[in-house]
Amino acid sequence: MAVTKLNTHGELIRDRRPGHGMPGELFGRQDVFETDVDVFFHKHWILVGVTADIPEAGDISTVDIGNASILIVRGDNENISIYRNVCRHRGSRLKEAGKSTVGMLVCPYHQWTYDLDGSLKHTTHMGVGFDRTCRGLMPVKTRIVGTHIFVCLTDDAPDDIAMLEETMSPRFAPYDLTHAKVAHETEIVENGNWKLVIENNRECYHCGATHPELTASFLPEDFGFCPDGLSEESQRALDEYQTRNAACVSSWEQDGLLCGTVEKLDPDIATGFRTQRLVIAGNGESQTMDTKVASSRLFSDLNRRDLGDVHLWTHNSWTHVMSDHAVISYIVPLAPDKTLVRTKWLVHEDAVEGIDYTLSALTEVWVATNTQDASLVSINYRGTQDPAYEPGPFSPFTEAYLELFAQWYAARLLAHGV
Amino acid sequence: MAVTKLNTHGELIRDRRPGHGMPGELFGRQDVFETDVDVFFHKHWILVGVTADIPEAGDISTVDIGNASILIVRGDNENISIYRNVCRHRGSRLKEAGKSTVGMLVCPYHQWTYDLDGSLKHTTHMGVGFDRTCRGLMPVKTRIVGTHIFVCLTDDAPDDIAMLEETMSPRFAPYDLTHAKVAHETEIVENGNWKLVIENNRECYHCGATHPELTASFLPEDFGFCPDGLSEESQRALDEYQTRNAACVSSWEQDGLLCGTVEKLDPDIATGFRTQRLVIAGNGESQTMDTKVASSRLFSDLNRRDLGDVHLWTHNSWTHVMSDHAVISYIVPLAPDKTLVRTKWLVHEDAVEGIDYTLSALTEVWVATNTQDASLVSINYRGTQDPAYEPGPFSPFTEAYLELFAQWYAARLLAHGV
Amino acid sequence: MAVTKLNTHGELIRDRRPGHGMPGELFGRQDVFETDVDVFFHKHWILVGVTADIPEAGDISTVDIGNASILIVRGDNENISIYRNVCRHRGSRLKEAGKSTVGMLVCPYHQWTYDLDGSLKHTTHMGVGFDRTCRGLMPVKTRIVGTHIFVCLTDDAPDDIAMLEETMSPRFAPYDLTHAKVAHETEIVENGNWKLVIENNRECYHCGATHPELTASFLPEDFGFCPDGLSEESQRALDEYQTRNAACVSSWEQDGLLCGTVEKLDPDIATGFRTQRLVIAGNGESQTMDTKVASSRLFSDLNRRDLGDVHLWTHNSWTHVMSDHAVISYIVPLAPDKTLVRTKWLVHEDAVEGIDYTLSALTEVWVATNTQDASLVSINYRGTQDPAYEPGPFSPFTEAYLELFAQWYAARLLAHGV
Repeated sequence: MAVTKLNTHGELIRDRRPGHGMPGELFGRQDVFETDVDVFFHKHWILVGVTADIPEAGDISTVDIGNASILIVRGDNENISIYRNVCRHRGSRLKEAGKSTVGMLVCPYHQWTYDLDGSLKHTTHMGVGFDRTCRGLMPVKTRIVGTHIFVCLTDDAPDDIAMLEETMSPRFAPYDLTHAKVAHETEIVENGNWKLVIENNRECYHCGATHPELTASFLPEDFGFCPDGLSEESQRALDEYQTRNAACVSSWEQDGLLCGTVEKLDPDIATGFRTQRLVIAGNGESQTMDTKVASSRLFSDLNRRDLGDVHLWTHNSWTHVMSDHAVISYIVPLAPDKTLVRTKWLVHEDAVEGIDYTLSALTEVWVATNTQDASLVSINYRGTQDPAYEPGPFSPFTEAYLELFAQWYAARLLAHGV
Repeated sequence: MAVTKLNTHGELIRDRRPGHGMPGELFGRQDVFETDVDVFFHKHWILVGVTADIPEAGDISTVDIGNASILIVRGDNENISIYRNVCRHRGSRLKEAGKSTVGMLVCPYHQWTYDLDGSLKHTTHMGVGFDRTCRGLMPVKTRIVGTHIFVCLTDDAPDDIAMLEETMSPRFAPYDLTHAKVAHETEIVENGNWKLVIENNRECYHCGATHPELTASFLPEDFGFCPDGLSEESQRALDEYQTRNAACVSSWEQDGLLCGTVEKLDPDIATGFRTQRLVIAGNGESQTMDTKVASSRLFSDLNRRDLGDVHLWTHNSWTHVMSDHAVISYIVPLAPDKTLVRTKWLVHEDAVEGIDYTLSALTEVWVATNTQDASLVSINYRGTQDPAYEPGPFSPFTEAYLELFAQWYAARLLAHGV
Repeated sequence: MAVTKLNTHGELIRDRRPGHGMPGELFGRQDVFETDVDVFFHKHWILVGVTADIPEAGDISTVDIGNASILIVRGDNENISIYRNVCRHRGSRLKEAGKSTVGMLVCPYHQWTYDLDGSLKHTTHMGVGFDRTCRGLMPVKTRIVGTHIFVCLTDDAPDDIAMLEETMSPRFAPYDLTHAKVAHETEIVENGNWKLVIENNRECYHCGATHPELTASFLPEDFGFCPDGLSEESQRALDEYQTRNAACVSSWEQDGLLCGTVEKLDPDIATGFRTQRLVIAGNGESQTMDTKVASSRLFSDLNRRDLGDVHLWTHNSWTHVMSDHAVISYIVPLAPDKTLVRTKWLVHEDAVEGIDYTLSALTEVWVATNTQDASLVSINYRGTQDPAYEPGPFSPFTEAYLELFAQWYAARLLAHGV
């Protein structure tokens, strides 16, 4: 066979035309996928859950991240520790994915028994000379920011998680999310590459026509628009948006709420993120169909409902925190063409379903939005795998964050020798 | 590991013993499959549908050919145009596989809007400087022969489609198949390599024992027989076949119908094909269980029922056109071990189901035959993947077209540098 | 992309730390899997069935071993012959997996017809010059030991099957297993590498906590225990076990029954095996929940019920023969992470279900045990594929046979040039 020399991962990245999409092989190739998982999901900080997943001592949330699996453990002292879900004997999983509550961690294969602090406490048949002290569960680098649990699966974790922590902690603080509970969660598998899932999340160019539920509360103008040749109607809507935005920011700042956009999506920042307090349309309260709060029990001791939406992007997650509830999604790549999206809806831990909130009103916006996005990601992925696909131009107005993402992606691979 | 050097695609072809089957690796290997798809399905003319798939202006038939996908569009001027099903923006599919009817082609992702002539008519948020003129849908080389729609997905399409067109157009003309409708269609996935599907179609050695429905009307003698040591009964049957054949041909020629076999299966012909007007057994009318027409409304203004079977082979299709109906099948390779077979049954556009024809009588022969062939292809494929498989000898009488196919396959790969 | 040079199969083996598990890549990698299948399932003797699968002349048992498939045929002379399940014409499978009874072997594709002795008897359309004599079915090297059917798919089969035959024939003889019937059989697919299935079978460290049904009759002490720091209770149990064992052996030897352990698991033995007459706990009769026989009709003309358990390990099977029934399991690797386990329960051919035995009492121990082991193999496999997996230490007392298996595995690959 005439051997077609494949472009390397690095060549594919360098050959991307600025302002245009990535070449299809970066989405579809197995070798690219494996490098992506290694670099972006094992060597960068990723979101893997929330503290509300494990409210009580002994609670464990087991999360699979591709071939890797971690145990998120609430210890006896209420501290949270995270371990690799691999027995130090013959490598068996200690727990299947999901939630459980234990006193000790006992391997189902040969009953090697670990304390919640990870130390190996008990084994049979290993002999008197066996040293248990070097056989504790492998710890995972962890950083908790508000309720968000970030991990890095390599020991050489990027330091700049500190920047995210410093920025977000005071923004999440008024909501006291450590006293939230998970009211609902979903898991869907989108039939597309993880980078297309992120691209889809990083622009609202597609929102108007495809997300009627989301755009009830969400203002696509926040993520860019083309100022050229606006119709009178469009210009009026834009003016209204800008006036409203200014008024909201002024009002929030009077209440001491942090509003300014912080954008750390530079190619030289490992732990890139972006946050902004977004204005909510209509009644201005929450991401719901009627733009009012979904839960009458607000977070913490808040009494003001119109706090906007504290929005956070990382390279594997997106978060919206409103006065009454939060919606937190994160992704796990499963294959070049499969990406898991986990979404959790949080409310105050004292909020009572049926009294303070109903699940349908709480979840309908993002259940619908996720479903719509899954469909878009699927048709986008398949098109990029067509031999006829040529990356087209980004809108300089509404897709600027895709260009930033492509640059960051390239720089981070380069930083890891790809 | 002791590295076993794999034979190249070219070596596998050259090592084939003349008169014997292909080595198993040509059927089972992923790299061979990918080259096959590129050479035989992207760089040769292939059948992808019939004009009856899109009878009205604005009708679209979307056909997936492996990773590629095309939009077969009936324009406002009733002309048929074919485009790659890839948006010029971020590559999204414009349409899912199947049929639809539209005024304009609107991408579901960001609503880039194309006219039915492929030109990009409308985009939002791209700015005043954006040039739409170079962003039309990519056209696909198309040739329509009777009702058959052939495409070539490369711009460098073989010229010799003209030979097929010149040969078949006058043979299809009396049936006026552009006024046919699709009465029924099926899609099955055969569990074997596409070349085994074609081999299976290129011999009738297997027909006698496995296709009772087909052989009611089909005469295996047409595709070869062994003259050695015939029993008296076999010799008599053969004599009868030859007498009947001569009589039919003479009668058809009196009516001005083209009968002569045209065989263009040479290794140096890219667009290989073969056609013959086949005699139908029994009542001599059509490929049905009772060998009479299935539809009382004949094609065009025909009034003679016993026109035989205008048969056509290409490397991805087989066609039978009788006075009352046509059966057209084409294949799309999905994986080394998966081949899609699409079959369409055509009748006159004015034929009425339940009055002029019933679906069961129309379709039972080829529904049964396809199912039987799928089973044979599956057991054949699995056997060729057994380490014990050694290609055996073709029958020089009934499998001569397999030898021709193997030679053509080798020559076409060589012509493309494999 | 920074190319990560993969370790070779040989390097992975050499890098294993003595006394520790194998590296994860030996379980999960496709190239390792393919070499394993070639070396251990095509070039070594493997168990593929029992004579009771084909009790009558003309009976055929078709067994798939990965891509390979064999026909186990009971000929007219009641001899058993085994052929590759590949037609010598175009390679079609002659039979689907499973059981059937025939007079001749007729290929379903073109009716090439073979005698039960494998010779090609009849073909049509091949011409007078066609020589059938060199086109018989390909024979498979076969050795029958008691009821066990071993094959080697290469012509260069290891000679040392003789050692297994000489050892086991006299041990199986008193049971006359050629007059047994298959009372039940199961097929399960375990989600793990075949070597993990064998490791799981080669230690009873895990039995106490996971196999309550098996340990009713099975004494884990037979396969090792740690003598350090035994509790008084454990010491007493051990003493009892040893006393009982000595008494049983003495009693069996008085009856002329072979009892001594024969262990041929050396790295330089191709056809490694181990046999021992194991003591049965409780009532001492059979591997059942009540440790009494499951079938009142004992094998052959036996009248003593407490004959223990004639146990046999090969690298793809495990066997337990008691006075009343036998349980024989063998494995076929399907993929790096999929292993088929077939289990057959044999009783005397005259035993009548519902009178002499019930299926539930006969099968419940191993049906439960297989299910439990499948679960353990699955969690073990997934853990070994985690990037955090590091092979841990074997118990020197209860996992010594895993070390032997790892050494044998390495030596056999080396012997085949890996």
